[in-house]
Amino acid sequence: MNKSEMIEKLRDYLPERRMVHSMNVAKSAMELCDIYGGDREKAEIAGILHDVAKYVKFSDVESYCHKYGIELDDIEKTNTSLSHSILGMYIAKNEFGIDDDEILNAIRFHTTGRPAMSLLEKIIFIADVVEVGRDYPGVDVVRELAFGGELEEAIVHSIDGTISVVLSKKAVLHTRTVEARNYYVKLIKDREKARNSVVI
Amino acid sequence: MNKSEMIEKLRDYLPERRMVHSMNVAKSAMELCDIYGGDREKAEIAGILHDVAKYVKFSDVESYCHKYGIELDDIEKTNTSLSHSILGMYIAKNEFGIDDDEILNAIRFHTTGRPAMSLLEKIIFIADVVEVGRDYPGVDVVRELAFGGELEEAIVHSIDGTISVVLSKKAVLHTRTVEARNYYVKLIKDREKARNSVVI
Repeated sequence: MNKSEMIEKLRDYLPERRMVHSMNVAKSAMELCDIYGGDREKAEIAGILHDVAKYVKFSDVESYCHKYGIELDDIEKTNTSLSHSILGMYIAKNEFGIDDDEILNAIRFHTTGRPAMSLLEKIIFIADVVEVGRDYPGVDVVRELAFGGELEEAIVHSIDGTISVVLSKKAVLHTRTVEARNYYVKLIKDREKARNSVVI
Repeated sequence: MNKSEMIEKLRDYLPERRMVHSMNVAKSAMELCDIYGGDREKAEIAGILHDVAKYVKFSDVESYCHKYGIELDDIEKTNTSLSHSILGMYIAKNEFGIDDDEILNAIRFHTTGRPAMSLLEKIIFIADVVEVGRDYPGVDVVRELAFGGELEEAIVHSIDGTISVVLSKKAVLHTRTVEARNYYVKLIKDREKARNSVVI
């Protein structure tokens, strides 16, 4: 399937508004590749398809899991905001013929993140929250960090914002998000320590 | 060892300020027992001893772990604010002769909490943050919930405050804290649903 066919097919899965978001994420992801040295081609595909399962209804989640042998964790089971990422990975694989593990994992972890993400995973995670259509308190800071060469700082800042929103809604917070945050908080601290210890 | 001997011995471990906090926690824990039906005797002992390891120096943590066969997780290894709870449990057991598992677990989980805590664990977790000497933004709300019969709501509110502080410090957040929060958020929601479905 070429890219145009992929986009055409995606229209069967997503309403126009979400199509626009998906194309925006693909565009931001390619721009981030230019900064961080990622693979533009993979970034574009991952961006286009990352939300393919966003409109799967809660009542249909179980049949998708059965069809593709997907095992949801306890939190994903109760929450389509969290399950759509893993469902999306399986739909991209089985219905769009994507067999590149890097792309599939970028879709899989685009919502929660995870510790030690690949460059493509980090780029899709951040492209999703900084694309031009996004407008929420704090988006400017995340954008500035992301396009200013501080990808990990952007990730921590974005996750901190997400956690605050989840707390204020008294919603459930995926522990993988916290593990991702802890990982990058530590990485940034260790990097600063290493930089400060360099004798010029 | 009777209670007076325990308190005398504790003075070898804690400075006066922390002794006052410990006695305050014991007092609040007993008051909470009167509301929720807990064991006052156990609550007092757990309150007195919960911070016994608070002043163990970072450089001494490893030798304690070796001495008592304690295994710290990756986060506890780097953070005495988190390791003092598990160290405290082993010190209470080995140096104060406490062999009651309920008391030991209340000490063990007083900082992070955990899902499905025992009543005593919940009481010590909350007594620690509402005792009369505590003064931080939001303490009044947690106190009101705790002494107003809403123990689980107090736990969620307290954890949300802790998470916000951890985020603002860019510090590491223990995933067990988040698991505890998710558990009680869900429990409160399920309880509300059950209450609303009762036909009178």
